[in-house]
Amino acid sequence: MATGSSGSKATARPRRAPEVSVLRVGHRAGRDPRLTTHLALAARAFGARRMFLHPPDRELAVRVDGVVRGWGGAFEIVPAEEWKKVVRSFDGPVVHLTMYGLPLSRVLPKISRAARVLFVVGGAKVPPDLYRLATYNVAVGHQPHSEVAALAVALERLLGVPRPGPWPNARRTIVPRARGKKVLERPGVP
Amino acid sequence: MATGSSGSKATARPRRAPEVSVLRVGHRAGRDPRLTTHLALAARAFGARRMFLHPPDRELAVRVDGVVRGWGGAFEIVPAEEWKKVVRSFDGPVVHLTMYGLPLSRVLPKISRAARVLFVVGGAKVPPDLYRLATYNVAVGHQPHSEVAALAVALERLLGVPRPGPWPNARRTIVPRARGKKVLERPGVP
Repeated sequence: MATGSSGSKATARPRRAPEVSVLRVGHRAGRDPRLTTHLALAARAFGARRMFLHPPDRELAVRVDGVVRGWGGAFEIVPAEEWKKVVRSFDGPVVHLTMYGLPLSRVLPKISRAARVLFVVGGAKVPPDLYRLATYNVAVGHQPHSEVAALAVALERLLGVPRPGPWPNARRTIVPRARGKKVLERPGVP
Repeated sequence: MATGSSGSKATARPRRAPEVSVLRVGHRAGRDPRLTTHLALAARAFGARRMFLHPPDRELAVRVDGVVRGWGGAFEIVPAEEWKKVVRSFDGPVVHLTMYGLPLSRVLPKISRAARVLFVVGGAKVPPDLYRLATYNVAVGHQPHSEVAALAVALERLLGVPRPGPWPNARRTIVPRARGKKVLERPGVP
């Protein structure tokens, strides 16, 4: 039996999901704290590994860090002084989420085979260069809505809805219930 | 050929998608204007018909109305002085989105057969009664994230990602593009 890496059974093997990073461009610390927090938490909850934040916002990073310490996983906020550097040095497809782009369904098969994917989400003002520097400009619906919604749906389409169960190093884990709230606390976790 | 409504070919016929309403409970006009705007626009973009807003916020309703006039469709913000009345009088399953609930995948088959579905999204403080009054408490992932993300993914799982093309009575329609922006303007529409 052949065990080569390009055997004919390749399509039957479960493919490893891409490692996803997110880049938030044009965050306004004074105006956007809650929206960018929602964006970061959605990125984490739907399986992204990190969010580059341009411009950096130390308070927000600390806040998100507190969520990671409580609920587990290895998500991190990475300060990005220059967003173009993040885009140019990224080793994989760069997917700019914009209502003006191509339908997600057309681009999804291409990016799902990549080892690493970078989703870029702009704020109120998107630098025009971003359309040119991105590998793909992709729309999650072609109506005005929300970068939080666009990112969450894109991540869900790429990686699926996350299942219940504890995350690595979690102090707190939800036990799904039909009514009310049940949270397992693990005070032993440092 | 039989044309009865309960023929054996029922499963082969495309099922009519449920008409979806959204209820936002506990909006804080001073603190949440942008988050609730994102929520309303995501609701509209992903196919909901209306959003009940508790407590009412006239400014926000006017703002969302402006988007509807420009981009088409019949989405509306409905002021809700008493959220319990909306829940109790709703003629269909009431689905409270909460990270403490049952996985979306378990509840989706049940609600996708309904004629009407009401998604309820709370703000920072969710009234405890809501867990009891809802038909289902449903989690979109069991991690803290964002009501905007939860609603968008729930709508997308129920109704699919909306396709490109003009909405009814739209003055503006996006033409999907790999680079840049293309918008069709129809100045003739009143």
